[in-house]
Amino acid sequence: MKLLQLVIFAAATTSCTLAVAFATHATAEKPASPIYGVTIPDGYRQWQLIAPAQEAAPLNELRAVLGNAIAIKAYREGTLPFPDGTVLAKLAWKHVQSPEFKPASVPGAATTVQFMVKDSKKYAATGGWGFGRFIDGKPADEAQHRTCYACHQALVKNHDLVFTRYAK
Amino acid sequence: MKLLQLVIFAAATTSCTLAVAFATHATAEKPASPIYGVTIPDGYRQWQLIAPAQEAAPLNELRAVLGNAIAIKAYREGTLPFPDGTVLAKLAWKHVQSPEFKPASVPGAATTVQFMVKDSKKYAATGGWGFGRFIDGKPADEAQHRTCYACHQALVKNHDLVFTRYAK
Repeated sequence: MKLLQLVIFAAATTSCTLAVAFATHATAEKPASPIYGVTIPDGYRQWQLIAPAQEAAPLNELRAVLGNAIAIKAYREGTLPFPDGTVLAKLAWKHVQSPEFKPASVPGAATTVQFMVKDSKKYAATGGWGFGRFIDGKPADEAQHRTCYACHQALVKNHDLVFTRYAK
Repeated sequence: MKLLQLVIFAAATTSCTLAVAFATHATAEKPASPIYGVTIPDGYRQWQLIAPAQEAAPLNELRAVLGNAIAIKAYREGTLPFPDGTVLAKLAWKHVQSPEFKPASVPGAATTVQFMVKDSKKYAATGGWGFGRFIDGKPADEAQHRTCYACHQALVKNHDLVFTRYAK
């Protein structure tokens, strides 16, 4: 019985250690943005649309801003500031002329995917928002991430640092 | 007892008649497109994004095409033709310069909301698709609806009459 208990204890311990190691490994594998440590949220492409946008030259991009459930609820109810847990995703593509309908521009190659994550404690120094800009799944460099808060703070302080409005 | 039975029968009959009248009335109230009888699906604004688009002058519109669950599954799996039950929603807004960020155009006033509904039997004469174009919740006239199938048939016959591709 002593031996059996030992074996069970050892098995349980090993299993637990492996689970912890695996979880740590999985977290470490997910690329995080400099400064903020924002990672790409699972399933963000399935989130609801807040609004599309178009960016003029030199970027020439088509964009769509999506939001997680907390974000969508806040938009619908006009809640400002956005509650903790809000995540906004901005998807951007080069806009290219539709080969089938000349007056239309449609998404070409993807350029960036950007996220704003609301956590009023963790990101208290930047208005409660953490930022992440990703290119091909990899975070952009620290210099690029230094520009996020400054620009949002300068231009949309009155809308909790968020540019995008809900398109009705 | 006879009288009571009669009262119960009369009450049940009246209630049933009212229920049928109400249901008929509710159906009649939902505006349907000419030719196709397409109505605005409940909850379409919560559907997932297929792709944004931009329309040049004279329309100057920003657009977003959303799809119901059947549509999204078909896009993900590359299913062509789209299965019966597919519904696509195209939301369009005038594009206006962002007052907060000059290089960006954002949605202004809503212009049209348009739907394509796949029902290979009901719409056999138009490639399996029914069309509906709505302005302020009201269907556009028959002349406008006459243009839908002809244009889709001429330009995107090879993609089951659907212009929009899934933006990745």
